[in-house]
Amino acid sequence: MASVVVTGTEQLLLLELFAIFVSAKVVGELFERMSLPSVLGEILAGALLGPYALGWIPTSDVIHSVADLGAIFVLFSAGLETSPAELIRIGGKSMRVAAAGVIVPFILGFAYMKLSGSPSSEAVFVGAAMVATSVGITARIFGDLHLLSTETVKIILGAAVFDDILGMVMLALVGGLASGGVNWLHIGILIGEAAGFALFMLFVAPRIVHRIEPRVEQLSMQNASLVVALAICLLLSWLAVKIGMAAIIGAFFAGLVFADYAPQWNLFPRVAGITEFLAPFFFFAIGARLNFSVLKGEILVAAAMISVLAIVSKVIGCGLPVMGQGWRVVLQVGTGMMPRGEVALIVALVGLQSGIVSQSTYAIVVVMTAVTTILAPPALRYLFRDEIREHREERVPEPVQL
Amino acid sequence: MASVVVTGTEQLLLLELFAIFVSAKVVGELFERMSLPSVLGEILAGALLGPYALGWIPTSDVIHSVADLGAIFVLFSAGLETSPAELIRIGGKSMRVAAAGVIVPFILGFAYMKLSGSPSSEAVFVGAAMVATSVGITARIFGDLHLLSTETVKIILGAAVFDDILGMVMLALVGGLASGGVNWLHIGILIGEAAGFALFMLFVAPRIVHRIEPRVEQLSMQNASLVVALAICLLLSWLAVKIGMAAIIGAFFAGLVFADYAPQWNLFPRVAGITEFLAPFFFFAIGARLNFSVLKGEILVAAAMISVLAIVSKVIGCGLPVMGQGWRVVLQVGTGMMPRGEVALIVALVGLQSGIVSQSTYAIVVVMTAVTTILAPPALRYLFRDEIREHREERVPEPVQL
Repeated sequence: MASVVVTGTEQLLLLELFAIFVSAKVVGELFERMSLPSVLGEILAGALLGPYALGWIPTSDVIHSVADLGAIFVLFSAGLETSPAELIRIGGKSMRVAAAGVIVPFILGFAYMKLSGSPSSEAVFVGAAMVATSVGITARIFGDLHLLSTETVKIILGAAVFDDILGMVMLALVGGLASGGVNWLHIGILIGEAAGFALFMLFVAPRIVHRIEPRVEQLSMQNASLVVALAICLLLSWLAVKIGMAAIIGAFFAGLVFADYAPQWNLFPRVAGITEFLAPFFFFAIGARLNFSVLKGEILVAAAMISVLAIVSKVIGCGLPVMGQGWRVVLQVGTGMMPRGEVALIVALVGLQSGIVSQSTYAIVVVMTAVTTILAPPALRYLFRDEIREHREERVPEPVQL
Repeated sequence: MASVVVTGTEQLLLLELFAIFVSAKVVGELFERMSLPSVLGEILAGALLGPYALGWIPTSDVIHSVADLGAIFVLFSAGLETSPAELIRIGGKSMRVAAAGVIVPFILGFAYMKLSGSPSSEAVFVGAAMVATSVGITARIFGDLHLLSTETVKIILGAAVFDDILGMVMLALVGGLASGGVNWLHIGILIGEAAGFALFMLFVAPRIVHRIEPRVEQLSMQNASLVVALAICLLLSWLAVKIGMAAIIGAFFAGLVFADYAPQWNLFPRVAGITEFLAPFFFFAIGARLNFSVLKGEILVAAAMISVLAIVSKVIGCGLPVMGQGWRVVLQVGTGMMPRGEVALIVALVGLQSGIVSQSTYAIVVVMTAVTTILAPPALRYLFRDEIREHREERVPEPVQL
């Protein structure tokens, strides 16, 4: 038992916490300096220092629990950035882009794995992992390019949020498959549950929060708003697991419920502190489960093929609903929807831990995530070159007027 | 192994996390409404729902590790509020108040336990637990009374910070005793180590932070300042354990090192978020280890006696250096230094976990902490009644001038 007393266990745990946190952040920093997403660096740190490569840093049960808490807060933070009111308002185009961008990758991913001889259950996991665009990475890229106010970018971000929700529903399904096998009645119930959960969170829960809000302000405790948000986050994470979904689905929707109150309740810096502390353990743990040595021969070919399909399928799927606006917009939207992230990795992890997904297939998904995330920024910089130039030209007059 | 996959272990862990967080916060809220410190409510929640009373909430190994992280962040936050530059500047009177206020309680506590038949090692722990005034609780009480700018209160708060540091050194000593037994050479080395650590942290480390500060701002990662502070917190916590002290000593000094940069680096809200999330698990765990049923007969008498001694010894010890200013100031300073808090509880916990301190003695220390903390606010409101009235009168003209 770890404790505040001077014990070997505690010393080891503190050393593990320190080593994981610092190595993840150092490799993340190196990636940032190469204009690559730091998340990939944190995963690479785990892959390099974890049991399959150098084996310098063991990951104990406690570390895995901390990593799970990290995943919960990564998704809680993502939810906090997702206003349900705005989502309902955007509606239309973003939703069509999202839906088509979910169906095409899933079918292509499933078909490829099935044709290359994988069992259906494993193919379902790969398809599901190809579904969700990473809102976080996408928003970050467009933010860096100063394009967040562009019409096309707004559609992309709205669609990315919708397909995160669809990705969550998909995860609920594959999670159900993981625990119960393929059973159509069971799948029907799960779809109903997941859809009901999502609709309740989008339409009902924000009204409940609106009602209790004045009472939260009357509480005598310090940081009452944060405490209430954290309690709901833990409650919904538990509830999600209880009804057969992943904990992070509950966490994401908990964030979504508080999104409209986050600025007023000053939730961002305080939740960001928790996420900043816990998230590196999650991404490190993702990497620590990656066995690089399986990436050779046909697995490497499969990883390359799945990566290509992940790109092509989003361009086709997300491009279809905006065909009327010309090829340039099709490519912009499709490429903008390309980067996969935490949801893809979690789907793969759920599959790996339940024994349905093999080490090789897990590696394929991690490679696909890395490839789509690495290629997106330069591709977008090229495809949006006119908008970027316009933006620069708009800003040029400023110094002249001084 | 806990995991993001749907498992019984994960479900149980999430339920434990939710139940502990919410029960601690609810009882804490009830305490706040009765004008009692919420920390005591969080401890009571653990005592009521933990294994010794109702037994509704088990505390697993993972929960204990989370509780340990909570203790680390409680002390890291306390350190962040303690500017080394200001500490060095206040010096003089506060330091004398602190030193006398450490020696007298330690001697009285040790003597009482020894005379009532406890072994020396256990008596040392009780004496050590009576040493440290809780800066957090003291600052909170005077803040609520709007007296933080009063000269006497400044002396009290400065002294409370100094005796936290002395309490840390004391904890290093008793921690050393816990692992190695009474050995004068060993104690000498420990005093040297603890004093060296404290002096290094007060005088050298802030200059190092001053040097690296421009480099931290050049880092590409997001939240670079928070990441650096967290990394140092984990490093010093591990280092403290490594050289034979408690992890929280390292965490406290890590906070102290960054105290002068906390506002500029925007550390307060983000670290407060982490502490707010993790601390309830620590206080709940403190309570969960408390066996109420031992509190009867002679143990109850001892608890009452130790509580009285804890009060009297601070009034005598802290009052001595300010004797020249009259009895009123003696009582004000002594009573202001009365509330014990996290350090006392941690000292008792270290003793309990190492097997030196019995269940009964642990209960005595927890009762002493609760009694001193509960009595301080009304006593101070009485002793500072003139200052409070003056403060109110100063504020009365305002509406008239409107």
